[in-house]
Amino acid sequence: SRTLHLAVIPGDGIGQDVVAEGLKVLDAVLPETVRVETTGYDLGASRYHATGETLPDGVLKELQSHDAILLGAIGDPTVPAGVLERGLLLKLRFAFDHHVNLRPARLFPGVDSPLAAHRADGAAPGGPEIDFVVVREGTEGPYVGNGGRLRAGTPHEVATEVSLNTAFGIERVVRDAFARAKARPRRKLTLVHKTNVLVHAGHLWDEIFQRVATEFPEVTTDYLHVDAATIFLVTQPERFDVIVTDNLFGDILTDLAAAITGGIGLAASGNINPSGAFPSMFEPVHGSAPDIAGTGKADPTATVLSVALMLRHLGLPEEAARIESVVAADLSSRPGAAPRTTSQIGDALASAVAG
Amino acid sequence: SRTLHLAVIPGDGIGQDVVAEGLKVLDAVLPETVRVETTGYDLGASRYHATGETLPDGVLKELQSHDAILLGAIGDPTVPAGVLERGLLLKLRFAFDHHVNLRPARLFPGVDSPLAAHRADGAAPGGPEIDFVVVREGTEGPYVGNGGRLRAGTPHEVATEVSLNTAFGIERVVRDAFARAKARPRRKLTLVHKTNVLVHAGHLWDEIFQRVATEFPEVTTDYLHVDAATIFLVTQPERFDVIVTDNLFGDILTDLAAAITGGIGLAASGNINPSGAFPSMFEPVHGSAPDIAGTGKADPTATVLSVALMLRHLGLPEEAARIESVVAADLSSRPGAAPRTTSQIGDALASAVAG
Ligand SMILES: CC(C)[C@H](C(=O)O)[C@@H](O)C(=O)O
Ligand SMILES: CC(C)[C@H](C(=O)O)[C@@H](O)C(=O)O
Repeated sequence: SRTLHLAVIPGDGIGQDVVAEGLKVLDAVLPETVRVETTGYDLGASRYHATGETLPDGVLKELQSHDAILLGAIGDPTVPAGVLERGLLLKLRFAFDHHVNLRPARLFPGVDSPLAAHRADGAAPGGPEIDFVVVREGTEGPYVGNGGRLRAGTPHEVATEVSLNTAFGIERVVRDAFARAKARPRRKLTLVHKTNVLVHAGHLWDEIFQRVATEFPEVTTDYLHVDAATIFLVTQPERFDVIVTDNLFGDILTDLAAAITGGIGLAASGNINPSGAFPSMFEPVHGSAPDIAGTGKADPTATVLSVALMLRHLGLPEEAARIESVVAADLSSRPGAAPRTTSQIGDALASAVAG
Repeated sequence: SRTLHLAVIPGDGIGQDVVAEGLKVLDAVLPETVRVETTGYDLGASRYHATGETLPDGVLKELQSHDAILLGAIGDPTVPAGVLERGLLLKLRFAFDHHVNLRPARLFPGVDSPLAAHRADGAAPGGPEIDFVVVREGTEGPYVGNGGRLRAGTPHEVATEVSLNTAFGIERVVRDAFARAKARPRRKLTLVHKTNVLVHAGHLWDEIFQRVATEFPEVTTDYLHVDAATIFLVTQPERFDVIVTDNLFGDILTDLAAAITGGIGLAASGNINPSGAFPSMFEPVHGSAPDIAGTGKADPTATVLSVALMLRHLGLPEEAARIESVVAADLSSRPGAAPRTTSQIGDALASAVAG
């Protein structure tokens, strides 16, 4: 028998609501041979207001001893924008070297897309499916915080942002993306960048991508500029299988990808350290939506799907797949049905995975 | 009587085809009191192959003496990616200080959008209209080419891209965007950036935006992170009136904006120097599409709409409006009609603006 040591950071707003349901489903899906031991961490807006801390070193250290982290949502209007994002969320991603930011985008049957060609009602069986995964680099690029302001507040001010890209950092995430593409039926990998303008970083990404491609002859590759990629995401999303891209382009593309597949309320993500040197962290893509916190209106589906990503990462692919198929069934039963509360959805998913 | 001195750079591929039609419509729309004198410049792939030049200093100097530049499209598969984009297109934008990169996004009646809520057939009169303008900064940000590669080709390589942002550069484009918003019926301006991550440049943009806002109390303002902006562009595009953003975010958002309003085949743009110190340049957003060059399949509409932007910039707003209304009528007559060639569309638009 095995015990999963799980750190739980519910965070702010609806983070609390959805994490509770994620854990419910987790408990229900695990076989008797796998136990889960959770430790809750009170981080986010209230901690910040109480102590001024976003992520104390002691907590970071404790988190490190866990097998994985489940995070709800971070952010509150009472905290200056960016403080919790950088002091907690990005700090965790960087401290635990979460270089594979994995974001699947799948339009489940029954879920409506804003795209006319992918309306739930119009979706002919066998029609074009949206089912791709974005592998977003998570530890470098324009997210490193490098830059500054000169002559701040004067008419002569200059502000810089430096995107840092290393061969080491690019190669490991590109390799990971190739491996994921190879394991999927379509075996296609698209590099997205802006090589015609960002020549320094762009060419490095491109060269490494080409070199690693020779090790994966089974994988078909192509390249798109980020601007063109946004066009294809709304005109031809079925063309994508796996996308690999940098931290900022990945941030942008995955919100758009979520929007075309039913919204960020359904989008799961994993901040993964494939080496296992540090715990990986799983979180819904949506924010803390403080206006509906505690009302039962939040959809826990993105968190439940994030739990599935976590289980797959922890070597429990069957349990992950069971969650995903139960979610798929639940989503397809929704059109026309009465709306349910957060915990009603969680209960339904939990009893379905158990049954 | 007045003479417009117009430099014409047809460029590559369909650039030749569409520019011919743009000029046809220009000739037809001008009153007798305004003459146009065009000088063609042979720049692009064939010049590059013949002489190795992209934009010789002598040509740059000649271009400078014109009232405006009309550009078709740049790019050919026989030229290494980025060479013409940077050596010609971006060089012109930077040399002539085109800091206002103006890109209207309007879904004309009869034109189909990939968005279900905006299908041509389903568009209820009075339903949500897509009609906004992106003011993209055109001379700084991540487009400055600043950066480099250290230990190139080794496993220890590091590549950087530096985004340069000046108070001077931001303030002038923000001010221009406020003035444009003030002149529109809805008077709304949205700043798009990523201030929670790109804090140095982001805060500078935000501070200047807030300060200039106090001079435009009639204009309603809001702010969106770039990732959230892409979501709204596909779920609620009618919320936008004027968007102001940096060079790279503007590049991404305007391709997406074009995609939801019928495609880049219809998207016009102006690279504007509002001071008039250098000629402004007008170009369709689409590329050179060498595969259909000369076949009559290219739609000249984006170029014709770019001519309208040019006329408005040159102080001929009535002629600009006449072109736009003729284009609107032409587009709304298309559903169900037989397809026409590039020059048939140009002829139809020319005779309509003349008549
Ligand atoms: C909250 C923010 C810092 C974060 C990011 O930019 O990565 C979010 O947008 C995301 O995609 O997880
Ligand atoms: C061709 C390329 C350099 C250019 C840009 O990135 O600005 C294009 O995408 C555009 O939007 O005009």
